[in-house]
Amino acid sequence: MSELSTDWLNEIRWDTNGLVPVIAQEHATGSILMFAWMNRESLQITYETRQAVYWSRSRNKLWRKGEESGHVQHVYEIRLDCDEDVILIKVEQVGGIACHTGRHDCFYRKLENENWLTDQPVIKNPQEIYKHE
Amino acid sequence: MSELSTDWLNEIRWDTNGLVPVIAQEHATGSILMFAWMNRESLQITYETRQAVYWSRSRNKLWRKGEESGHVQHVYEIRLDCDEDVILIKVEQVGGIACHTGRHDCFYRKLENENWLTDQPVIKNPQEIYKHE
Repeated sequence: MSELSTDWLNEIRWDTNGLVPVIAQEHATGSILMFAWMNRESLQITYETRQAVYWSRSRNKLWRKGEESGHVQHVYEIRLDCDEDVILIKVEQVGGIACHTGRHDCFYRKLENENWLTDQPVIKNPQEIYKHE
Repeated sequence: MSELSTDWLNEIRWDTNGLVPVIAQEHATGSILMFAWMNRESLQITYETRQAVYWSRSRNKLWRKGEESGHVQHVYEIRLDCDEDVILIKVEQVGGIACHTGRHDCFYRKLENENWLTDQPVIKNPQEIYKHE
Protein backbone atom coordinates (compact mmCIF):
# COMPACT_ATOMS: atom_id res chain seq x y z
CA MET A 1 0.00 0.00 0.00
CA SER A 2 2.97 2.30 0.20
CA GLU A 3 6.66 2.36 -0.49
CA LEU A 4 7.66 2.90 3.11
CA SER A 5 9.77 0.23 4.75
CA THR A 6 7.80 -2.35 6.68
CA ASP A 7 10.76 -4.00 8.43
CA TRP A 8 9.46 -2.57 11.70
CA LEU A 9 6.37 -4.74 11.31
CA ASN A 10 8.56 -7.84 11.17
CA GLU A 11 10.02 -7.06 14.57
CA ILE A 12 6.64 -7.60 16.18
CA ARG A 13 5.90 -11.07 17.48
CA TRP A 14 2.43 -11.64 16.11
CA ASP A 15 0.39 -14.33 17.84
CA THR A 16 -0.75 -17.50 16.10
CA ASN A 17 -3.73 -15.59 14.68
CA GLY A 18 -1.46 -12.87 13.31
CA LEU A 19 -2.62 -10.37 15.92
CA VAL A 20 -1.06 -8.21 18.59
CA PRO A 21 -2.83 -6.71 21.64
CA VAL A 22 -3.05 -2.93 21.64
CA ILE A 23 -3.56 -0.56 24.57
CA ALA A 24 -4.95 2.87 23.63
CA GLN A 25 -4.00 5.58 26.09
CA GLU A 26 -5.29 9.15 25.99
CA HIS A 27 -2.32 11.33 25.12
CA ALA A 28 -3.33 14.38 27.16
CA THR A 29 -4.58 12.70 30.34
CA GLY A 30 -2.88 9.30 30.50
CA SER A 31 -6.26 7.55 30.83
CA ILE A 32 -6.50 4.07 29.38
CA LEU A 33 -9.25 4.34 26.80
CA MET A 34 -9.59 0.81 25.50
CA PHE A 35 -7.89 -2.45 24.68
CA ALA A 36 -8.15 -4.07 21.26
CA TRP A 37 -6.20 -6.03 18.65
CA MET A 38 -4.41 -5.20 15.43
CA ASN A 39 -3.15 -7.30 12.58
CA ARG A 40 -0.28 -6.33 10.34
CA GLU A 41 -2.42 -4.40 7.91
CA SER A 42 -4.29 -2.43 10.55
CA LEU A 43 -1.08 -1.41 12.30
CA GLN A 44 0.47 -0.31 9.04
CA ILE A 45 -2.57 1.78 8.16
CA THR A 46 -2.60 3.21 11.69
CA TYR A 47 1.02 4.26 11.31
CA GLU A 48 0.63 5.73 7.86
CA THR A 49 -2.64 7.56 8.42
CA ARG A 50 -2.08 8.41 12.10
CA GLN A 51 -5.63 7.26 12.76
CA ALA A 52 -6.33 4.11 14.78
CA VAL A 53 -7.49 1.07 12.82
CA TYR A 54 -7.97 -2.18 14.73
CA TRP A 55 -8.80 -5.74 13.81
CA SER A 56 -12.24 -6.82 14.94
CA ARG A 57 -12.04 -10.41 16.16
CA SER A 58 -15.83 -10.73 16.34
CA ARG A 59 -16.49 -9.40 12.85
CA ASN A 60 -13.21 -10.73 11.46
CA LYS A 61 -12.38 -7.57 9.55
CA LEU A 62 -10.62 -4.22 9.80
CA TRP A 63 -12.24 -1.93 12.31
CA ARG A 64 -11.72 1.71 11.49
CA LYS A 65 -12.34 3.17 14.94
CA GLY A 66 -14.93 5.92 14.76
CA GLU A 67 -16.04 5.06 11.23
CA GLU A 68 -19.67 5.01 12.31
CA SER A 69 -19.59 7.06 15.50
CA GLY A 70 -17.17 9.75 14.37
CA HIS A 71 -15.15 9.02 17.50
CA VAL A 72 -11.88 8.54 15.68
CA GLN A 73 -8.51 8.39 17.41
CA HIS A 74 -5.61 10.52 16.21
CA VAL A 75 -2.39 8.68 16.94
CA TYR A 76 0.53 10.58 18.49
CA GLU A 77 2.80 7.74 19.45
CA ILE A 78 3.19 4.02 18.79
CA ARG A 79 5.20 1.98 21.31
CA LEU A 80 6.35 -1.62 21.57
CA ASP A 81 7.04 -3.58 24.74
CA CYS A 82 10.14 -5.53 25.77
CA ASP A 83 8.79 -8.84 24.45
CA GLU A 84 7.76 -7.29 21.13
CA ASP A 85 4.26 -8.64 21.55
CA VAL A 86 2.21 -5.72 22.92
CA ILE A 87 1.59 -2.30 21.35
CA LEU A 88 0.79 0.92 23.21
CA ILE A 89 -0.65 3.83 21.23
CA LYS A 90 -1.13 7.34 22.57
CA VAL A 91 -4.09 9.02 21.01
CA GLU A 92 -6.38 11.98 21.00
CA GLN A 93 -9.93 10.70 21.34
CA VAL A 94 -12.23 12.78 19.17
CA GLY A 95 -15.55 13.41 20.93
CA GLY A 96 -14.05 12.35 24.26
CA ILE A 97 -15.85 9.00 23.99
CA ALA A 98 -13.90 5.81 23.35
CA CYS A 99 -16.36 3.23 24.66
CA HIS A 100 -19.34 1.86 22.73
CA THR A 101 -21.42 2.37 25.89
CA GLY A 102 -21.05 6.13 25.37
CA ARG A 103 -18.53 6.55 28.18
CA HIS A 104 -15.14 8.23 28.08
CA ASP A 105 -13.32 4.92 28.28
CA CYS A 106 -14.00 1.22 28.63
CA PHE A 107 -12.64 0.80 32.16
CA TYR A 108 -15.58 2.34 33.98
CA ARG A 109 -16.04 -0.38 36.59
CA LYS A 110 -14.00 -0.47 39.75
CA LEU A 111 -13.77 -3.34 42.19
CA GLU A 112 -15.05 -2.27 45.60
CA ASN A 113 -15.95 -4.72 48.36
CA GLU A 114 -16.27 -7.62 45.93
CA ASN A 115 -18.46 -5.63 43.54
CA TRP A 116 -17.82 -4.02 40.17
CA LEU A 117 -19.11 -0.48 40.63
CA THR A 118 -19.62 1.86 37.68
CA ASP A 119 -18.05 5.24 38.41
CA GLN A 120 -18.19 6.90 34.99
CA PRO A 121 -21.24 8.54 33.44
CA VAL A 122 -22.65 7.85 30.00
CA ILE A 123 -21.73 10.99 28.05
CA LYS A 124 -23.88 10.20 25.05
CA ASN A 125 -26.60 7.61 24.54
CA PRO A 126 -25.23 4.79 22.33
CA GLN A 127 -28.43 4.87 20.29
CA GLU A 128 -27.58 8.41 19.31
CA ILE A 129 -23.97 7.47 18.58
CA TYR A 130 -24.72 4.51 16.33
CA LYS A 131 -27.49 5.34 13.95
CA HIS A 132 -28.19 2.16 12.06
CA GLU A 133 -30.36 2.53 9.01
CA MET B 1 -8.40 -19.43 50.39
CA SER B 2 -10.72 -16.99 52.11
CA GLU B 3 -14.36 -16.56 53.01
CA LEU B 4 -14.85 -13.44 50.92
CA SER B 5 -17.39 -13.63 48.12
CA THR B 6 -15.93 -14.55 44.75
CA ASP B 7 -19.01 -13.74 42.67
CA TRP B 8 -17.09 -10.83 41.18
CA LEU B 9 -14.66 -13.32 39.65
CA ASN B 10 -17.54 -15.01 37.83
CA GLU B 11 -18.42 -11.77 36.09
CA ILE B 12 -15.14 -11.85 34.22
CA ARG B 13 -15.13 -13.49 30.81
CA TRP B 14 -12.06 -15.67 31.07
CA ASP B 15 -10.57 -16.81 27.77
CA THR B 16 -10.42 -20.45 26.72
CA ASN B 17 -7.22 -20.84 28.77
CA GLY B 18 -8.88 -19.38 31.85
CA LEU B 19 -6.90 -16.16 31.58
CA VAL B 20 -7.61 -12.46 31.31
CA PRO B 21 -5.23 -9.77 29.97
CA VAL B 22 -4.09 -7.23 32.55
CA ILE B 23 -2.74 -3.73 32.02
CA ALA B 24 -0.67 -2.38 34.91
CA GLN B 25 -0.68 1.41 35.14
CA GLU B 26 1.40 3.47 37.52
CA HIS B 27 -1.01 5.07 39.96
CA ALA B 28 0.90 8.32 40.47
CA THR B 29 2.02 9.06 36.90
CA GLY B 30 -0.43 7.26 34.62
CA SER B 31 2.44 5.47 32.84
CA ILE B 32 1.69 2.03 31.47
CA LEU B 33 4.16 -0.22 33.23
CA MET B 34 3.49 -3.62 31.71
CA PHE B 35 0.99 -5.99 30.21
CA ALA B 36 0.51 -9.51 31.53
CA TRP B 37 -2.10 -12.17 32.25
CA MET B 38 -3.96 -13.38 35.31
CA ASN B 39 -5.97 -16.49 36.03
CA ARG B 40 -8.73 -16.68 38.57
CA GLU B 41 -6.44 -17.56 41.45
CA SER B 42 -3.89 -14.84 40.73
CA LEU B 43 -6.57 -12.15 40.50
CA GLN B 44 -8.13 -13.30 43.74
CA ILE B 45 -4.76 -13.20 45.51
CA THR B 46 -4.04 -9.79 43.96
CA TYR B 47 -7.32 -8.46 45.31
CA GLU B 48 -6.93 -9.95 48.77
CA THR B 49 -3.28 -9.11 49.31
CA ARG B 50 -3.24 -5.85 47.30
CA GLN B 51 -0.03 -7.02 45.68
CA ALA B 52 0.10 -7.96 41.99
CA VAL B 53 0.26 -11.65 41.20
CA TYR B 54 0.14 -12.67 37.54
CA TRP B 55 -0.02 -15.95 35.66
CA SER B 56 3.15 -16.74 33.77
CA ARG B 57 2.20 -18.30 30.44
CA SER B 58 5.79 -19.31 29.72
CA ARG B 59 6.40 -20.97 33.09
CA ASN B 60 2.78 -22.04 33.49
CA LYS B 61 2.56 -21.00 37.12
CA LEU B 62 1.69 -18.12 39.42
CA TRP B 63 4.06 -15.20 39.03
CA ARG B 64 4.38 -13.18 42.18
CA LYS B 65 5.65 -9.95 40.64
CA GLY B 66 8.82 -8.82 42.41
CA GLU B 67 9.33 -12.10 44.22
CA GLU B 68 12.91 -12.27 43.05
CA SER B 69 13.66 -8.64 42.20
CA GLY B 70 11.87 -7.01 45.11
CA HIS B 71 10.05 -4.85 42.57
CA VAL B 72 6.59 -5.66 43.84
CA GLN B 73 3.48 -3.75 42.83
CA HIS B 74 1.08 -2.42 45.45
CA VAL B 75 -2.40 -2.39 43.99
CA TYR B 76 -4.60 0.67 44.48
CA GLU B 77 -7.39 -0.05 42.05
CA ILE B 78 -8.74 -2.94 40.01
CA ARG B 79 -10.92 -2.11 36.99
CA LEU B 80 -12.87 -4.11 34.44
CA ASP B 81 -13.70 -3.09 30.88
CA CYS B 82 -17.06 -2.97 29.10
CA ASP B 83 -16.70 -6.47 27.63
CA GLU B 84 -15.65 -7.95 30.99
CA ASP B 85 -12.55 -9.43 29.41
CA VAL B 86 -9.73 -6.99 30.24
CA ILE B 87 -8.45 -5.88 33.66
CA LEU B 88 -6.71 -2.60 34.47
CA ILE B 89 -4.82 -2.32 37.74
CA LYS B 90 -3.39 0.88 39.15
CA VAL B 91 -0.26 0.23 41.13
CA GLU B 92 2.66 1.69 42.96
CA GLN B 93 5.80 0.19 41.46
CA VAL B 94 8.32 -0.44 44.22
CA GLY B 95 11.83 0.40 43.06
CA GLY B 96 10.46 2.32 40.09
CA ILE B 97 11.36 -0.58 37.81
CA ALA B 98 8.65 -2.73 36.26
CA CYS B 99 10.54 -4.18 33.29
CA HIS B 100 12.87 -7.17 33.44
CA THR B 101 15.32 -5.14 31.33
CA GLY B 102 15.82 -2.84 34.32
CA ARG B 103 13.77 -0.01 32.87
CA HIS B 104 10.90 1.89 34.42
CA ASP B 105 8.36 0.21 32.16
CA CYS B 106 8.16 -2.25 29.29
CA PHE B 107 7.09 0.23 26.60
CA TYR B 108 10.48 1.83 26.08
CA ARG B 109 10.52 1.65 22.28
CA LYS B 110 8.85 4.27 20.15
CA LEU B 111 8.17 4.04 16.44
CA GLU B 112 10.01 6.82 14.61
CA ASN B 113 10.58 6.83 10.85
CA GLU B 114 9.94 3.09 10.59
CA ASN B 115 12.30 2.27 13.44
CA TRP B 116 11.72 1.21 17.03
CA LEU B 117 13.86 3.62 19.03
CA THR B 118 14.62 3.06 22.69
CA ASP B 119 14.00 6.24 24.66
CA GLN B 120 14.19 5.00 28.24
CA PRO B 121 17.38 4.32 30.19
CA VAL B 122 18.24 1.14 32.04
CA ILE B 123 17.91 2.15 35.68
CA LYS B 124 19.49 -0.98 37.07
CA ASN B 125 21.45 -3.75 35.40
CA PRO B 126 19.23 -6.85 35.18
CA GLN B 127 22.13 -8.99 36.38
CA GLU B 128 22.05 -7.04 39.61
CA ILE B 129 18.29 -7.32 39.84
CA TYR B 130 18.06 -11.08 39.33
CA LYS B 131 20.70 -12.84 41.32
CA HIS B 132 20.41 -16.48 40.42
CA GLU B 133 22.25 -18.85 42.69
